Amino acid sequence: MPASRVINFGPGPSALPQSVLEKATQGLLNFNETGIGIAEISHRSKEFVAFLSNIESLIRTQLDVPSTHSILFTQGGGTGQFSAVVLNLLARHRLLYPELTADERVMDYILTGSWSEKAFQEAGRLGGARVNVALDARKYSKDGVSFDNVPPHGEYAFSPAPAFIYYCENETVDGVQFSADPSAQTSFPFARLPRERSGLLPLVGDHSSSFMSRPIPHLGEHAVIFAGAQKNLGPAGLTVLIVRHDCLVDVDAAAKLGAAPVPLSLSYKTLADSKSLYNTPSMLPIYITGLVLERMQELGGLTYFEALNKKKAEKVYAAIRSGEERGVFQGKVQDGSGSWMNVVFNVLGDGAESRFLTGAEEAGMKGLKGHRSVGGIRVSLYNAITESDTDKLVGYMKNFVSEAGAQAFGVKFSC
Amino acid sequence: MPASRVINFGPGPSALPQSVLEKATQGLLNFNETGIGIAEISHRSKEFVAFLSNIESLIRTQLDVPSTHSILFTQGGGTGQFSAVVLNLLARHRLLYPELTADERVMDYILTGSWSEKAFQEAGRLGGARVNVALDARKYSKDGVSFDNVPPHGEYAFSPAPAFIYYCENETVDGVQFSADPSAQTSFPFARLPRERSGLLPLVGDHSSSFMSRPIPHLGEHAVIFAGAQKNLGPAGLTVLIVRHDCLVDVDAAAKLGAAPVPLSLSYKTLADSKSLYNTPSMLPIYITGLVLERMQELGGLTYFEALNKKKAEKVYAAIRSGEERGVFQGKVQDGSGSWMNVVFNVLGDGAESRFLTGAEEAGMKGLKGHRSVGGIRVSLYNAITESDTDKLVGYMKNFVSEAGAQAFGVKFSC
Ligand SMILES: Cc1ncc(COP(=O)(O)O)c(C=O)c1O
Ligand SMILES: Cc1ncc(COP(=O)(O)O)c(C=O)c1O
Repeated sequence: MPASRVINFGPGPSALPQSVLEKATQGLLNFNETGIGIAEISHRSKEFVAFLSNIESLIRTQLDVPSTHSILFTQGGGTGQFSAVVLNLLARHRLLYPELTADERVMDYILTGSWSEKAFQEAGRLGGARVNVALDARKYSKDGVSFDNVPPHGEYAFSPAPAFIYYCENETVDGVQFSADPSAQTSFPFARLPRERSGLLPLVGDHSSSFMSRPIPHLGEHAVIFAGAQKNLGPAGLTVLIVRHDCLVDVDAAAKLGAAPVPLSLSYKTLADSKSLYNTPSMLPIYITGLVLERMQELGGLTYFEALNKKKAEKVYAAIRSGEERGVFQGKVQDGSGSWMNVVFNVLGDGAESRFLTGAEEAGMKGLKGHRSVGGIRVSLYNAITESDTDKLVGYMKNFVSEAGAQAFGVKFSC
Repeated sequence: MPASRVINFGPGPSALPQSVLEKATQGLLNFNETGIGIAEISHRSKEFVAFLSNIESLIRTQLDVPSTHSILFTQGGGTGQFSAVVLNLLARHRLLYPELTADERVMDYILTGSWSEKAFQEAGRLGGARVNVALDARKYSKDGVSFDNVPPHGEYAFSPAPAFIYYCENETVDGVQFSADPSAQTSFPFARLPRERSGLLPLVGDHSSSFMSRPIPHLGEHAVIFAGAQKNLGPAGLTVLIVRHDCLVDVDAAAKLGAAPVPLSLSYKTLADSKSLYNTPSMLPIYITGLVLERMQELGGLTYFEALNKKKAEKVYAAIRSGEERGVFQGKVQDGSGSWMNVVFNVLGDGAESRFLTGAEEAGMKGLKGHRSVGGIRVSLYNAITESDTDKLVGYMKNFVSEAGAQAFGVKFSC
């Protein structure tokens, strides 16, 4: 790493591998020997179409996406999908059950953090069906108002036959994630979900901030998984969708039955029918994402990254615990609910948080300030953060704890 | 230009200035001395916020955008805006005239090519108001079915009080553009447009493929102008909007009065209230667009590019006319309606078109194949195409004409 680059622990947009960025500079001027840069070439050129289809294979192989699901690429970010899932899945439900009233049609939302809450609010705005809160994790929090946990399986109250069930796999702001251990009570309650008559699950997952960081449990049972690229995968401007084929519905036919019309650029079927090339895609972000995925494959795919990410997170959580023992740090998330991707804690004492941040920045580590809505420190440990980046931060945290401890005890001579 | 780069006459994504691409390779690794690359840095960092606000100023100054209008940045391309303009402007109209029925609420579309036709179809899909074709240029075409002209001012049949009037400034596929000469009958009929009681014009212009290539006449009278960046401005993945303040409406209040709910990512007011940072924007495309705009400013802004683009187009049209005289080429667009940006013609004779394309490619010129829906040749002459690039193409065209002429007369010894 050249001296001028700092370590970027930001929550997204976030760090990208240096080697990928260096390779990308070539593609900017000359994409795959076409003589034309990647930001300039036609999205219908055979070279780009081949590149896009290779990205699809790289995701399909590494995540083990079954042939029942399409992998689609679009623009608009996670926020665009907050609306798109509602519109497409209500259109699907309308085609399946045209007779239901707006009150009988229900969308189940699982609220474990501020991103699932935003999605929930958008569902309410768009209307067309009743919104049911199947779970509100705030009720189980230490302070009664924060998102700091994943509640146990028994606490979910699903509707008997929802049009869809919505969850956010990793809550980027609050640092809460479903456990990777399926036997934990803080894992996602797959076994308890209400199925459709057909046996299918109408399950929608926002995986924006954990996509491609570890395998996705029960992937094949999801109706829709979506993720903005700007965490583990690439630059902002690309959104990846995994959509089960029965969710690629004719939205115009549904509109004739009374469903809300779907803006064409949000229709999953339009995207799928055109192989994600209905209109001009965000090519430069797609290109860099492709390079990231190639590198992931070389390094060993998700097996490699799952182990690495687990280790990185464990190191940071351990450093927080040491700081807790000395009264310097305070973890924010309850046991078993802590995210591997976004680790959040407070630095205790007057002015201590800003001292922590300034010191980190002086040591070449940026992006550690918590989200403005919750404050504190947030360490984002996406795939591009190496173990040695993590060690550097952990070293800094330990130092901070000893110095704070020394000051607290007035041991001035230790300087 | 390094030997490996070819001249890219593609219709979009399209050529970018070499100097911009070289500068962008630095920003990929280290954006404005932050130590973090532009694809990795937070969209809420002060450095990026300043960069975005500078882009706004560069557009405002060069296009002379009045303070009555906001300049906004979003994702989703021109296609996303086909839906967004309908939803936002019908919400506005609903707030102004809640009493009208769906049949009394009218959207006027001016059809001069396949992009305005696509937008027109989307308006029909979304519903909520009646769609009126204020003009269909096909009726005035040479063959009765093609888009090959801008009809005279007297031919437009506007509704008395439309919710909005929609046009496409430059038809990228058909090569038809409104004349830059306001006294020409093929200019846009500003003086004939129906105004609202307030005196305002509810005018929406798709400027995707001519944005920043020359000044926009009557810009200040537009309700909305939109453009995908991937022609004159930058990479795909960025959409620029110029929106008059009275069109930044509370879409939820309109929905309460019966307007269609607007997906939050399509709401103009949400974008404006957040200074285009409601969610993560497409930062890398924004960055390169910023570099392009800085270079434009240095070169003399739109005065410089208007003169350059006019000259380039005139040279190509002259080469087509010479080819017509020899029966080798055939212009496709009627006089006075030809685009400066996308010049279209046919190469006459069996196999001649593919010979033309192969020869051009061998000479290092790509992207000349016409759109699959209309065939023929299309020369896209966006800002990044230099006069010398144009001269090279014109030289090739002249050569092609002489050789074709020689062959036609059987003058075999000329080889
Ligand atoms: C979990 C999650 N969902 C959705 C979003 C919204 O994504 P975007 O900014 O691309 O709209 C974010 C953004 O950080 C996120 O972390
Ligand atoms: C005039 C015009 N409008 C709209 C579009 C659609 O743009 P996008 O592909 O970004 O959706 C294009 C694309 O070329 C265009 O040329």
